Amino acid sequence: MSINKIGNGLAVGVDIGGTNIRSVIVNTNGEIIYSLKVPTLAQQGKEATIKRIIDTIQQVINQSRVNPNKLRGIGICAPGPLNGKTGIISFTPNLPGWKDVPLKKILEDKFAMEVVLENDANAAAWGERNFGVARGVNDLACFTLGTGIGGGIIIDGKIYHGADYGAGEFGHMTVNKDGPRCNCGKYGCLEAYSSATGIKNRIKNRLKKGLKSEFLNLSQESKVDEIKLKSIFEAARQGDKLVADIVEEAINYLGIAISNIANILNPQMVILLGGISNEGEKLLIPLREEIKKRTLYTHYRSLKIIVGELVDMAGVIGVASLIFD
Amino acid sequence: MSINKIGNGLAVGVDIGGTNIRSVIVNTNGEIIYSLKVPTLAQQGKEATIKRIIDTIQQVINQSRVNPNKLRGIGICAPGPLNGKTGIISFTPNLPGWKDVPLKKILEDKFAMEVVLENDANAAAWGERNFGVARGVNDLACFTLGTGIGGGIIIDGKIYHGADYGAGEFGHMTVNKDGPRCNCGKYGCLEAYSSATGIKNRIKNRLKKGLKSEFLNLSQESKVDEIKLKSIFEAARQGDKLVADIVEEAINYLGIAISNIANILNPQMVILLGGISNEGEKLLIPLREEIKKRTLYTHYRSLKIIVGELVDMAGVIGVASLIFD
Repeated sequence: MSINKIGNGLAVGVDIGGTNIRSVIVNTNGEIIYSLKVPTLAQQGKEATIKRIIDTIQQVINQSRVNPNKLRGIGICAPGPLNGKTGIISFTPNLPGWKDVPLKKILEDKFAMEVVLENDANAAAWGERNFGVARGVNDLACFTLGTGIGGGIIIDGKIYHGADYGAGEFGHMTVNKDGPRCNCGKYGCLEAYSSATGIKNRIKNRLKKGLKSEFLNLSQESKVDEIKLKSIFEAARQGDKLVADIVEEAINYLGIAISNIANILNPQMVILLGGISNEGEKLLIPLREEIKKRTLYTHYRSLKIIVGELVDMAGVIGVASLIFD
Repeated sequence: MSINKIGNGLAVGVDIGGTNIRSVIVNTNGEIIYSLKVPTLAQQGKEATIKRIIDTIQQVINQSRVNPNKLRGIGICAPGPLNGKTGIISFTPNLPGWKDVPLKKILEDKFAMEVVLENDANAAAWGERNFGVARGVNDLACFTLGTGIGGGIIIDGKIYHGADYGAGEFGHMTVNKDGPRCNCGKYGCLEAYSSATGIKNRIKNRLKKGLKSEFLNLSQESKVDEIKLKSIFEAARQGDKLVADIVEEAINYLGIAISNIANILNPQMVILLGGISNEGEKLLIPLREEIKKRTLYTHYRSLKIIVGELVDMAGVIGVASLIFD
């Protein structure tokens, strides 16, 4: 997409998460002109969630009072595996009971508009590329750091999907062959070290072994889920023995993963979104050091490593703007 | 390139290696109709080597007795870093004294023909894609396993170069953060484990520590350079304590690297060329096991892992055929 080619109009962007469904109206400048967030209530089952997605889209259209004639389509993003070509969500770990759901067709039938379906990390990369930190950058990789770790790759100014719509699974790169078990069932994945879940699981395992935190109130394991990443990082900086090396490894292994991407893809830019990237410079300083140590000089020299600016809106903005292509 | 679009004609392909310069005449079917190999004698210095490259091209044209009017250009491949756009070889570890050599211009001036310059691993990937095991495959990665480890990426039926002509440095992926020192100066690179040099360096280090091989004649360290990879693998299969786990790790870390490529790029095919890939099925059986263990099922299921068929001619055939694009 060239931004110049975008005409007028509006699009709906929807981000289906395990906790919330976010629905927005986006204009061709990537500006959100109305936004709505409702709980997913995924445990009520597939049909209820699909109904809630439909209702949310209808609500955002109604409440925003936009001229429906200006709406050019609906962009939906969700965690994979999904196939943008067929419009089918194969399954999604956060939405129990979802299996081979033809969401594109369901929404096209309901709203009589163009619908595009895209992996949430790809959508976020696309959002940052068109309206965020990566305007005009044609070769980039985007890490979405959250409960899991996703990835989006832009090559030659287009989202790269791979042979089977599976490209960009940065979270499941093996960074330590003898590492801890990941949610995917494999061992030593980046996600097991550097995602919020990975960090918290490692803390829980240490508490189980009887280790104690000096600075965090972790009297019971269940407390770990309530605690913010920010507090964990703060405790690590104070030298808390329980979490210091867990945080250090979270940063180092993220550095190794980014360095691998740099050596493999030689992108102009790596964008970080969510999770531990909210630490900003406190993350970036040690992270860049690790990346420099691990990356061929020619590849490091030209690489920008940067936190995204669209934050948790990158995905909905990106997927809505796919409608304008 | 679509093979159908290739017209008639011939091209020269040249592979500049640290030991030999190979020069061939290739037709539009990717068939070698004449081949010549001369020693590089890189230690004689840059000017002498450039002269030898020119002489070799002239010789292959003369000796092949092809009609010079049919020659459409010259494709040159060399280990990176080089820039195909500017036609400059920045430096190349195997050719001492080479720094920012404008080889494309030198040869264009000399032969008054189109000259293309391409990284050797990219050229090999392109050769296999057009005339080898990957005919018609549009998304693939190719590992060139030799004294070093290179990589070539084909995306959407085109060589992917990255932002700075540096894409595909598979050999410098970090596979173990605490691993041995690589030739590049970094630690724990794939190349330090799975290249011929990496395997032999690790054997030498063990000999230094006084360990002995049961099945190999390794009375002195210098003997290690003479020994063939085939013999090392054979000794490992016999249970030689000195080399068994070095070989096992060479396979496992290659598996991890391929798995990372599969999770990141979701290619249709991974091609292996040279070095330990000459072990064929003896490598592929344990390798596929490791890759399966490390790769998301959706990505493994659709992935072909295969040894290339153009062997050490993949690069020259590939780079010559770039002339036909």
